[in-house]
Amino acid sequence: MKFKNKIIKEILERYKTIDAIQRLYALASWDLNTYMPPKAAEDRGIILGKVDVLIKKLILNKEFVKLINKTEREKNLNDYEKAVIRILKKRIKILSKLPDKFIEEFNETTNKAQIIWRKAKETDNLKEFLPSLKKIFELARKQAEYLGYKEHPYDALIDLYEENWTTKDFENFFNNIKYELKKIFEIIKSSKNYVDRHPLEKEKYKKEDMEKINYEVLKILNFNPERSRLDIAPHPFEESISLNDVRITTWYHKKDFRRSISATIHEFGHSLYELNIDPELKFTPLQRGASYGLHESQSRFWENIIGRNIIFLKKIWNICRKHLVFLKKYKFKDFYIYFNLIRPEFIRVEADEITYHFHIILRFELEKMILENKIKIEEVPEYWNEFMKTYLGIKPKTYKEGILQDIHWSMGAIGYFPTYSLGTFLTGMWLEKLEKDVGSIDKILIKENGINIIQEWLKENIHKYGSVYTSKDLIYKICNKNFDTQPFFNYLKAKYLTLYK
Amino acid sequence: MKFKNKIIKEILERYKTIDAIQRLYALASWDLNTYMPPKAAEDRGIILGKVDVLIKKLILNKEFVKLINKTEREKNLNDYEKAVIRILKKRIKILSKLPDKFIEEFNETTNKAQIIWRKAKETDNLKEFLPSLKKIFELARKQAEYLGYKEHPYDALIDLYEENWTTKDFENFFNNIKYELKKIFEIIKSSKNYVDRHPLEKEKYKKEDMEKINYEVLKILNFNPERSRLDIAPHPFEESISLNDVRITTWYHKKDFRRSISATIHEFGHSLYELNIDPELKFTPLQRGASYGLHESQSRFWENIIGRNIIFLKKIWNICRKHLVFLKKYKFKDFYIYFNLIRPEFIRVEADEITYHFHIILRFELEKMILENKIKIEEVPEYWNEFMKTYLGIKPKTYKEGILQDIHWSMGAIGYFPTYSLGTFLTGMWLEKLEKDVGSIDKILIKENGINIIQEWLKENIHKYGSVYTSKDLIYKICNKNFDTQPFFNYLKAKYLTLYK
Repeated sequence: MKFKNKIIKEILERYKTIDAIQRLYALASWDLNTYMPPKAAEDRGIILGKVDVLIKKLILNKEFVKLINKTEREKNLNDYEKAVIRILKKRIKILSKLPDKFIEEFNETTNKAQIIWRKAKETDNLKEFLPSLKKIFELARKQAEYLGYKEHPYDALIDLYEENWTTKDFENFFNNIKYELKKIFEIIKSSKNYVDRHPLEKEKYKKEDMEKINYEVLKILNFNPERSRLDIAPHPFEESISLNDVRITTWYHKKDFRRSISATIHEFGHSLYELNIDPELKFTPLQRGASYGLHESQSRFWENIIGRNIIFLKKIWNICRKHLVFLKKYKFKDFYIYFNLIRPEFIRVEADEITYHFHIILRFELEKMILENKIKIEEVPEYWNEFMKTYLGIKPKTYKEGILQDIHWSMGAIGYFPTYSLGTFLTGMWLEKLEKDVGSIDKILIKENGINIIQEWLKENIHKYGSVYTSKDLIYKICNKNFDTQPFFNYLKAKYLTLYK
Repeated sequence: MKFKNKIIKEILERYKTIDAIQRLYALASWDLNTYMPPKAAEDRGIILGKVDVLIKKLILNKEFVKLINKTEREKNLNDYEKAVIRILKKRIKILSKLPDKFIEEFNETTNKAQIIWRKAKETDNLKEFLPSLKKIFELARKQAEYLGYKEHPYDALIDLYEENWTTKDFENFFNNIKYELKKIFEIIKSSKNYVDRHPLEKEKYKKEDMEKINYEVLKILNFNPERSRLDIAPHPFEESISLNDVRITTWYHKKDFRRSISATIHEFGHSLYELNIDPELKFTPLQRGASYGLHESQSRFWENIIGRNIIFLKKIWNICRKHLVFLKKYKFKDFYIYFNLIRPEFIRVEADEITYHFHIILRFELEKMILENKIKIEEVPEYWNEFMKTYLGIKPKTYKEGILQDIHWSMGAIGYFPTYSLGTFLTGMWLEKLEKDVGSIDKILIKENGINIIQEWLKENIHKYGSVYTSKDLIYKICNKNFDTQPFFNYLKAKYLTLYK
């Protein structure tokens, strides 16, 4: 039994109601992006807004807060019990510091901004979106002031996504990786094998064929339709509606089939995390991933470390050949390279394992500079292009391919992007430790139960803990060292400097 | 502006949160019967249970109740404002009279009973279900005592589904109709045209073809995919998730295609009611149908009065012939008779417009007798068979075809069935008034905008009011007379005594 303390048990009993509403909220978000009739959008926004305020009220309920404060005098709380208090205190802190009026203004602004952004992106009309963007960064600045911070307003926002991580932490991280990444990228570019496009990108497919492929790929990954679903969404995502109901979505573009497979595997990685949380943590604040970075480390582990691995791709190759006739013209080698192209891209989500991080660094630096009032919103597009030139050597011709590509800012999610790179570099740490514990990834994947071995390792080391530990603590617990970028570089070099000799 | 009173406005502002949660609850119910992964059932039950209790708390919130009581001193409330108070007072009365413990026991018992019932039905094992049924009727009896009643415990339960209707009302209604229905049925049975089966019932179809037919039929009915959806469910239902998001479901049985079309049209009728409620009533307690009977009068109006009408069926005939090859062997006359078969059936939902009511009367009488402790649960199957023999001249050979066929009792829905017959007989009243106002239904349906004319009439007379009026008041308001069975008999006789001459 994980929870023994009487007060903790009382807290968890009360929390069940909050969790229940949050799960319905999650269902409504899933629905909003899958099956909701289009005209329902406005009312759905109002409904979710009301429920948001109710959740806030329930968490800030005086008796509930009193109960939580009462645990301060409790001794001998175990890790699980301490984590309940840690997480609830953080939520109470955040919610109590943000005035109702601010939350309302924030929700209203970002709800509208998402619609404006979508239209602006479609028509490539930046002007239409700039006022919203300005307002959102003003609100983010305000939010940081309300929440408080030690060194940098950005700290307050980053902490919303990655507990205990600071601007400084990410500065160190990005300074640490950018030259090394650039170096690897330059070597690849000068390789005789370097290609910046691939004929498979142009090959067209039928949605029905791709759907079959996705389900067969998921089957290899032990996807369980009794506890999960695969649906279609404008932008793929994963949603945890309950411990036995974690849903993923994917997309279909009629061509460039890798995008659909990669998205499916990526979201599957997210879902595996949620599905493997210890059932004893069900309905508690611990039934969720440790952080955004940790979650991304799971999705990207499956998308990249497994999904672009040569042994794994051989299995996928057979599935794809069954359903995609055009593959008769190609060899496995083409297929493998197609999944492992390294080349500059305008679009972040299309980027490869190496250049991806330049997209993140660009966004991180821009967010920081805007919050520091070092640049004006109007100057952001200019800086964007300059950064792209510096880091990737390319300059977007449209705003769609530039500042308008991501939904995050329109949602008010400032401080979110850096967790993507953190998650990716964490996959290197997991790989290093997994190989130490169980053997080389290629040797595991060759085994018939290879996928099970990997999933068992992830479950026992990461998934089952939910958010008992912060990402920093969990990293140390698993790897016996702090966050380290070297393992991911080792992986990158071993793989890509062989491929691009 | 419908709502002017200050206190009412404050009540409605607070009610928005309750409405919001209820709408998410509705979404979760829709999901539960459409896309939810099977293993999620147990947790979904727990989540909905918690949300149920929360809704109760919000409605019984002291300040909220005080506000409602405060309106007693308010004068000059209009119909809309009075209705808000009427409905909320009723909910408060019901919720405050039922102890938490009872609600929990009721939910737990019926949740379990539904699973037991499903299995018992599959295996035709009545014994397995009888203990649950016994418990449920005991709880229903308790519920009636908690809620209070003047003459009959059944009154308290009926009032949950049909405001202001009593056991006496339904006794009068059923006594009034049963001999007349029997008489019509006997005439039909002695007709030379009488058939008790039809070759079209055996014809097999492909689901994809039926889906196309359903969408084309819905198109004729002005189904709006921007505000609605059609999905598949084990048992068809309609769910109102918001004013611009009212979803329906249908089923496919591989053969006997009428069942799928009729179910689709039936649920469409329900959805039209919800979609046409005055937008000013959005997020208020008035944004719902006036009663279960009123709602059923809408679904059955479309399923029967329109859906089995000869002019309408001619349009459907063309659609069906496009997609069902076997129809080449048949004439329209066969098709028309197939949709209008009158013959005894074991299964209520399969029954025709005439014999249907014997199924309801049977259930009504059994519910009443059990609540009066006149018969024991163990004796119910025996009585069931006896009633079937008396009313329909047939005796079910299995429990699946008898007492185990309906889900209602396992859900604890005692007092629900009678509203089905009420709704059906109301369709006769609507038809009579519609024809008086606009002209004969056949003449309307021949017109190109015939469906629009009918929908406009229903909207202006019934739909737009939501639950401003009780069913009794609304009937009087529309027809200038109280509930009357004669119009439906007129319709039945005019139609079926011609068909079965």
